[in-house]
This record gives sequence, C-alpha cells and structure tokens, in this order.
Amino acid sequence: MSVERLPGSDPYAATGVPEFGLRNYWYPVLAGWRLRRRPKAVKVLGEDIVLFRDRGKVYALSERCPHRGARLSRGKCLYPGSGTISCCYHGWTFNGETGRCVAKLMEGPDATLPRQPVVKSYPVREFRGALWVFVGDMGAVPLEEDLPECLAATAEWQGISTWRSYRCNWRILKDNLCHDLHAPLLHRNSPELMFQPIFTHASRIAAVPLDDGKGIGYTARDGITEADYPGLGHFPPRRETWYRVLKPVGRGRDIDPAALATAKHGVKYRQSSLLPGITLIGRPSGNYYVCRWVTPIDADRTLYYSFSLFRRRGMLRNVANRVFWGLWLSWVHDWIFSDQDKRVLEAVIPGQELLSRSDIGVVAWRRFVLTHRRRPPEVARAAAVEEITRPAAE
Amino acid sequence: MSVERLPGSDPYAATGVPEFGLRNYWYPVLAGWRLRRRPKAVKVLGEDIVLFRDRGKVYALSERCPHRGARLSRGKCLYPGSGTISCCYHGWTFNGETGRCVAKLMEGPDATLPRQPVVKSYPVREFRGALWVFVGDMGAVPLEEDLPECLAATAEWQGISTWRSYRCNWRILKDNLCHDLHAPLLHRNSPELMFQPIFTHASRIAAVPLDDGKGIGYTARDGITEADYPGLGHFPPRRETWYRVLKPVGRGRDIDPAALATAKHGVKYRQSSLLPGITLIGRPSGNYYVCRWVTPIDADRTLYYSFSLFRRRGMLRNVANRVFWGLWLSWVHDWIFSDQDKRVLEAVIPGQELLSRSDIGVVAWRRFVLTHRRRPPEVARAAAVEEITRPAAE
Amino acid sequence: MSVERLPGSDPYAATGVPEFGLRNYWYPVLAGWRLRRRPKAVKVLGEDIVLFRDRGKVYALSERCPHRGARLSRGKCLYPGSGTISCCYHGWTFNGETGRCVAKLMEGPDATLPRQPVVKSYPVREFRGALWVFVGDMGAVPLEEDLPECLAATAEWQGISTWRSYRCNWRILKDNLCHDLHAPLLHRNSPELMFQPIFTHASRIAAVPLDDGKGIGYTARDGITEADYPGLGHFPPRRETWYRVLKPVGRGRDIDPAALATAKHGVKYRQSSLLPGITLIGRPSGNYYVCRWVTPIDADRTLYYSFSLFRRRGMLRNVANRVFWGLWLSWVHDWIFSDQDKRVLEAVIPGQELLSRSDIGVVAWRRFVLTHRRRPPEVARAAAVEEITRPAAE
Repeated sequence: MSVERLPGSDPYAATGVPEFGLRNYWYPVLAGWRLRRRPKAVKVLGEDIVLFRDRGKVYALSERCPHRGARLSRGKCLYPGSGTISCCYHGWTFNGETGRCVAKLMEGPDATLPRQPVVKSYPVREFRGALWVFVGDMGAVPLEEDLPECLAATAEWQGISTWRSYRCNWRILKDNLCHDLHAPLLHRNSPELMFQPIFTHASRIAAVPLDDGKGIGYTARDGITEADYPGLGHFPPRRETWYRVLKPVGRGRDIDPAALATAKHGVKYRQSSLLPGITLIGRPSGNYYVCRWVTPIDADRTLYYSFSLFRRRGMLRNVANRVFWGLWLSWVHDWIFSDQDKRVLEAVIPGQELLSRSDIGVVAWRRFVLTHRRRPPEVARAAAVEEITRPAAE
Repeated sequence: MSVERLPGSDPYAATGVPEFGLRNYWYPVLAGWRLRRRPKAVKVLGEDIVLFRDRGKVYALSERCPHRGARLSRGKCLYPGSGTISCCYHGWTFNGETGRCVAKLMEGPDATLPRQPVVKSYPVREFRGALWVFVGDMGAVPLEEDLPECLAATAEWQGISTWRSYRCNWRILKDNLCHDLHAPLLHRNSPELMFQPIFTHASRIAAVPLDDGKGIGYTARDGITEADYPGLGHFPPRRETWYRVLKPVGRGRDIDPAALATAKHGVKYRQSSLLPGITLIGRPSGNYYVCRWVTPIDADRTLYYSFSLFRRRGMLRNVANRVFWGLWLSWVHDWIFSDQDKRVLEAVIPGQELLSRSDIGVVAWRRFVLTHRRRPPEVARAAAVEEITRPAAE
Repeated sequence: MSVERLPGSDPYAATGVPEFGLRNYWYPVLAGWRLRRRPKAVKVLGEDIVLFRDRGKVYALSERCPHRGARLSRGKCLYPGSGTISCCYHGWTFNGETGRCVAKLMEGPDATLPRQPVVKSYPVREFRGALWVFVGDMGAVPLEEDLPECLAATAEWQGISTWRSYRCNWRILKDNLCHDLHAPLLHRNSPELMFQPIFTHASRIAAVPLDDGKGIGYTARDGITEADYPGLGHFPPRRETWYRVLKPVGRGRDIDPAALATAKHGVKYRQSSLLPGITLIGRPSGNYYVCRWVTPIDADRTLYYSFSLFRRRGMLRNVANRVFWGLWLSWVHDWIFSDQDKRVLEAVIPGQELLSRSDIGVVAWRRFVLTHRRRPPEVARAAAVEEITRPAAE
C-alpha cells in the first residue's frame, strides 16, 4: 500500500538504472525458517507477493486475490498436499505453481472456474537458508545461473546469512558497494578494522568486465594510507592515528596474480559487482567471501541480504568458522560496520550528483547495468535491431 | 486534514457508487452520551462537522469558521440557551440552526453581520442513543423516512448500539454485508456460531427489490453445508468438522412464508440492504434484528454503527435481552465475529475485481444504488429527462 | 524530506505573501548553545542548512553534499581551525564561508577540485544567544539592519529568549500577531492577565507605516471592555466577570504621546509588525519589549523565536528582571499564554477567509509585505519599471 511516485519524480532517472530494480533475476526475499504454517507477504521490486509452504515445498503468488482484493497472506493452505492456498474471504483457491483458480469454495464444487491463471505465480526456490523469487516478465532462468560460484557450490562453501531492511532506494545502497573509496574514511575507526590492514585511499580504481559477462571486478592501484592536505592537515587526523599502530599496510592493494592462493583458486578481484545487485568481497587467500545481495522492496526500501561464505576445509575448521562468525563477525561486521553505512545512506537526500574520480566504480556499474542487464529475448532483440539501424550521426 | 485523492484515482470509480458515500441521507455519527459540554468534531462523507449541545438540544454546523479557518469544535457555547456556538479565535458566533453569524464578539455589538448564512448547517437529531446528521444538497427528509421500522418504532423495539471505526472505504465494508457468501468460510469457526445452524454455501443468491423501494432483500436457495472438491478434499476440512456436532443444519435456508412468525410479523428476508448503506439481518422468529449502518467518514475510513434490536415482549424479557446481549452478543458478535471481517477488510488492496456467482448480492446492491439513490428533485428530474431523450441505439 | 505541495495548492496564494517566507532577511534559527562540536541541521524557508562551529566561529552551508547527496550534518569539522566541514561519506571538505570544495579526502591531496563553490553558503551570525542566518538571493545586509533597536542595542537592553516550533504555516502564526483583536477573547482568562489592565475589544484598529519603512505600527481607539449582545447576553459572560475585579481598565488604549516615558523613549505604538515577520509589543513605560520572530521552516512548520527585552537600568534591576522572568513570565507568558494561541493555530483549516473589521491589521500587514519586502536590486528595479509602464486602465 505504498504510495507510488508521480511519474518523472525519480531523482536518478537520468542514470537509466530502474528505480524499482532489475527485473528478470532471482532475489533472496526471506529466510526460509521464517516461513512456517502461516503464509507470509513480502514486497519485491514493488510487487506484493505471498509465500506459502505446503508439505515443505514453497510457493509464491501475487498477494492480491483477484476476486475482491483480499490479501492472500491472510488465507491459508486449507488442503495440505495440494500445493494450493485458499483466500480467507470467499475461498478462492489457487494453485501455487500455475496461479490458476482451482476452486471457489463458497460457490460449491461445480462453480465455473476461469481457464487462464488469474494470479501471477513466481518461480521460487529455497536455497542456502533463503527463499529466492524470480521477478520479471520472462521464463525463469535456473537459480544457479544468477548465483556466484561461492554461493552456488554448497559442497565446497559453508554459508551463514543475515539480512536488514534499509530505508532508502536500492541504488543508493548498491552505489555504496561499488568500491567507491568511502571505506577509508567512513569505516576508519570501525572496530572490525582494528587488526586488519589499513584501507588505502586515492587509489586509481578501474572496473574490468568479468569473463562470464555477469558483472565487473574492481582493481585499485597506487593507493596511499595517509597524506597531507594543504591548508587542512594530515589524513587521517593525527589525533586518530594512535589507533593504527596495530594495523599493517596492504589492504586495498591489488591481488598478486602470482600468489599461491590466487593461482590455486583463481581469485582475480577483491571486490566485484554482479547483476542484479550483488557485491562479492573476497580475501586474497581465496577461502572467504562476503556476498551481499541488494533486493529492492519498493522505491524507498531495500532488503540487504548478506552471506558470509567460508571454504569448507574440514569439519573442525567449519565449526571454528561458525564460532568466529558468532563471536566476532556477526556483530562487528554485519552490525557495527554496516551500521556506519546505514546511517549515512538512509539520510541521503536524493538529487543531482557531482561524480568524481572516486566514483569510477559507480559509473562503471551503472554503465554495465544498462548494457548487460537481462531482458526478455524479444525486448533484447528489438533493442539490438534499433542499435544497428540507428544513424551513425547520432 | 485528510489528503484528498487525486481525481481519477478511485479504484472503484467504474462501479458508479460514490467514493465518499450517498448524499442526502441521514447517518448516525456519534453516540449521544459522548456529546456533553464540549463541542465535538466528526467527519462524515468527507465533510468536517462540529456538533454541540445547548440545553439538551443538539446542533451541527460546518467545522471550519469562515472567518479565519479556526475549528469551531475548539469554541464553545458561550451563551447557553441561545443555540449558538462562538469561535474561540475572534468570537464569531453562529446560530446552530441556520448557520448565520449572529455576532462578531470582538467587533462589538454593532458589528456588520453578513445577511446570508456563512457556515453550512446540518439537520441533526438525537434518536436511539445516537446523533444523526443529514448530509446532502437538499432539504432534509424526516429521519424516520430513512430508518427501517425496527429502528423507528421505539415503543415496539428495544435497541442497544455499538460502533467501530474501520480503516477502509465504506464500499469495501458494505460489499461485505451483501450476502456475498463469505460467512460460511470466514466465520466458520467463530464462537458465535457454535450453537447455531450451519451457514450454507454454494447457494443461489437472488436479490429482490423491497416493496417500499428503499432496498433489496436477499434470498438464498439450494445451499449446502459441505462438499467434496476434486483434487482438494472436503469443505469444511475434515479436521474442523468435529466442531460442527453441536450445530443443526438450517441456517441460510429461505424463510418459510407459511411459518407462524413470518406470517405474524411479515418477515420476508433474513437479510436485506437498505439505502444509504444499511444491512438488516433478522431471525425467522421476527423478534430480533441486527441493523448495521455504514457511515462513510472519508475515502479511507468508515464508521460502523450497529444496533441490536429486540422486539419488546414484556419487562422481564427486555431485561433478559439486555443481560443476554451484555454477557454474550456484545463480545461474541460485535467484537469477535466482526473482527474476523475487520481484519480482512482493512487489508484489502483496492483494484480491479473478478466478480463471480457469489457476488450476485454485491452487484445487485451496486445496481440498486445507481437507480434508486435519493437525489435532489432537480437533479433527479434532469436525469429522468436525459433517460427519456437518450437515443435508443445507445 | 518534507513533501512539497503540488503547484497551485497553496490556500493563501491569493494574498501574495509567499508560502515559504520572505527571502533576503536574517532569521534566528537555533540557540547558540545548542551548537557544540556536532554540526546541526536546520530547515529555514524550506532550505536544508547545516550549521557548524569551528574554534567558536559559526558557519552555515547547504546541508546536502553535492557529491552523492549525503547530509553534511553527519560529517564533522575534521580540521579544527580551518573553518571547513568534511562530509562523512567520501570526505569532500568544504570551506564554511565560501562553499568551495577545498579537498576530496578520499581522492588524495592532488585531486581535481571544482573552481566554483559547489554548496551554497549562508551568511551567519551569533547574536543575543541565537544563531542568525540570512536566507535569500542577494548579498546579505548587515544583521543590525534587520533588528529592531531594542534587540540590536545590547548595551542598553537585556534579553532572554525562548523558542517553540509550531505545526502550521508561518502566515497563520504571523496573522495571529497583527493586533487582530483575538486577545480579549482567546486570552481573557489567561493567568498572565490576572493583574493587568483588561484588553479592550471592538477597537478601531489602524496601521501606520513606521518612519524607517521597516514595518507598521498599530493603533487601537475607542475600545470597550464589555458589552451586551442582543439575543445573546453580556460579553464577557457574567459568570466570568468575577475574575475581572483585580483588573484595571486601560489596556488597549492608545499610548499617550504626552506621557513622560513616551516622550523620553520615543515609544509610539504598543504593537508593531516588522519585516520579515517580527512582532514588537511594548509597555508604555518604554522599559520592556517582547520581540517575537517568526521563522518559516517549511510549508507546515514554523519556528517561533521570542525575546523578552528589559531596558538596562542598573545591575540590581537586571537581576530582578531575570528573576521575574524565570518565576513568572517564562511560564505564564511564553508557555501558558502562547499555548492558547498554539492550540488554535495548529488546528486551523487553511482555506478561503472572510475578512472583517477586526482584520484591518492583518490586511495592512499583507499589503505592507507586498509593497515593502526586500528584493534583490535587479528584481526591485524590474518591478518598478513594470509599475510605471503598466497602462493606467488596468
């Protein structure tokens, strides 16, 4: 029941990146354990969706009953095993896979039923503890096609996930994750970084398309950890530098392609952005990734789904990873570190930007979205034809 | 201070039933005992109204002082016995019956006063414990003309009333009361129905205009209390039917015109819809009615005024009725039973509908509204002329 | 982040007085002691402004970082003594006086910097315990030019200030302060007036332009303290008049120009309205003024900054004034008395008015605003030319 914006009022329309997110992708929308006997309503890319579970299997339909507009999430799965949900108002019962109305309970078994599906059904999967929904206008691709390898390969990677809801548009959050050099300033005193290499700034950022065409990897060269600013003083301010004695230099340097781990695991970038709004941040060791998935809810809210992924290297290490996550990472990173961003992002006043050298990663991401985002085959074809036939003068 | 919708944004505009309610009718707006010495502001059909009481008599005027916009409900009746209210800001004093400004206190006794009424005055009555206001664009009809007989005849009928405010448009609430067959599903496990006949579903609903032209009565034939749905199972679900052992069959069957009570009291329909938004539900005995009056507040809020009416049959029975109401009906019906509807209705997502056989009563009501609603004589005449002169081809 | 009104939806557009306040004036926006080490965001005339303090000096810039839209009030003065504020997101650092970007910390000391100022800077002063900002489209005039003498002359006048935020447009609040004769009614039972002369009503209000062209003074002649209203009764109502035994008559009478104090101090009016939205209320003794400054926040909120000003007449009297203010004036006037207005004003339903004799002061104020408000020289010139060349017939 959110208010739609007036047309033309999207302050980032000029970027071409759609306000409500990229369609035709899978998105994590809810932790699986939160969907039990009661159906649950979620909003994804501005669409109201009901999720329900029947004998373990999960279904996703449009939330609005087409009959008189009641919310299907108030209904329930009256006939376990049938994969249907019944609206609580007049008992219109819908097949969770096809969206067809298979009964109008209050009209008796001989009621006339519409032949066509009357509610939109969404492809849905349960994977890595999350419920994934494909939102778009074409047949779903396999979920695995949209997942980075560390997320897809459960046998090799152990995963723990958390999520938060942000009160801002998804683009503001995703821009924050395009290696835009905010970290050396905004997170400079974050406890998580107390024992880590110092983030470098003033680096020359470059974005390189990934081989699989699904995203871009960022490189950062020639970064510095401190500097003098004429007329101002030192950065970081001298009064803060005692804090740095624990930290070695190194963070932010590019990955050495000759290093053992890199060679072994093929890690090429510390940070990369993948469609539809994924950020992958890895350690040079190749044994840990954090994968953060930005799921647009509507114009002003975004779900931030975060996976910590550890390479499985024996039972003992797996347990150690969980303990390490529970005692340290969970609060120091997913909570305190992320909150530094959250407070800034939720207060952003949308409007015209003045992009600069530090935004190379942001600009590259936006350009990549425009050229590489998935589109229904017929739309993509039409766009390609238009591209070819456009006069050269333009 | 509610935000008005943008024109054209009423999702039910196509039904022709006005978003803000039917004008030119009486509506219950407030329990009489709630209006004491302080004026009270109410909103009815989108109009802000101040009610005030002077020496027992009640007056209703437009809430906004025409001088500088202050709310008259912040003012008071400075001159008891005069039937006036004085604005608290500059003392413009208005006659509660005519809406004329009879003094501008701060300008002295010789101030120039406008000849014409400057605030709209509303016909108002206190009756059955409620304050009734006539909202419209014509002279008021007598209140009794708008009341069903069981409400009008205080000597024969004992009444108890409650009210609630719903966060939805009045049409969504009124549709719910047009014998649309939601009850056998939505209320199937309501405690109120534990000892009552089972509601039947899959009935053939018909709507018959009442003799007095003020509404429609509903009939329901050939209903069933249970059935098997292919591919699904039984309705009601088997696990719920133990609950039904206490209930005889019968509810929902048509009233037998040969039955004694029916013949005696002339009860023809169990349920009927009356203009402007009344629902009358009776027992076949003819000794009890529930009369529910839907008063639109604005586009998104509705006042639901409910009267329980018992036929007076001796002092002892009257007392017993009150006790029965207080101990059972009040909470089990006005609270628990109604809440099952309230939760669904307040969550409805307005939009296009897919009406079906169970909505015959709803469609009949909407059609009846369009053809039979009261209109100022000149408007009705113009409409009739247009009707006659419209080319047949249309 | 307030919602802007749709164009054309200002209910007072016809008055010509701008909805968001008069530009090109100084306004008090915050008590000085509330601005310490953390920058503070304020909104004035609809503009978001960040205030920050560096080594005692105060600066005011546009709140939105032009880079990516973060709020500068989340940033901090990283380099004390430099008069700059650094955005917390990527460290763009702005000179508080010029609005120029003097560093992009995350891009290193050799980053390219824009030559022109990229954020709007506001002239700001700390005076009389308040922070004053000049909001407009021209170079700032000296603050003293906008202050009434009792506020400007700190050596002769002792001042104590309070402030409140009102949930209404600034014009509704300012109209309330144009000697519009609401006081004898709305404040008739205010404890503050218990020992004061009775306010007269039905006075003939006149507004006289002040010699310095900065405002208008109000005169009120022939006022009465009570009267009989035909058909109603006495005003004030008889049951309230016992309350008046303590009060001498006199309030509301014009100042006697021959009186000693008046002659000595040149007090000509009890009450006057000054641009941009100041109300000055004085005692005939010439030793006390209350100066109330209306600072528009946005379309629906207003800051009400109030100064109590006592003429300095010796140390002992200064102390006595503070005690008197703390024990009596502070709560009985700034709190209780003002609250009587606040409750009415915040509930006003904006719309068409029906102005009357009591509104002479309001109308005079509005007219004065249209003809005398400060405008950037080129705008004023263009308006004057248009005035001259307009055909007489119009």
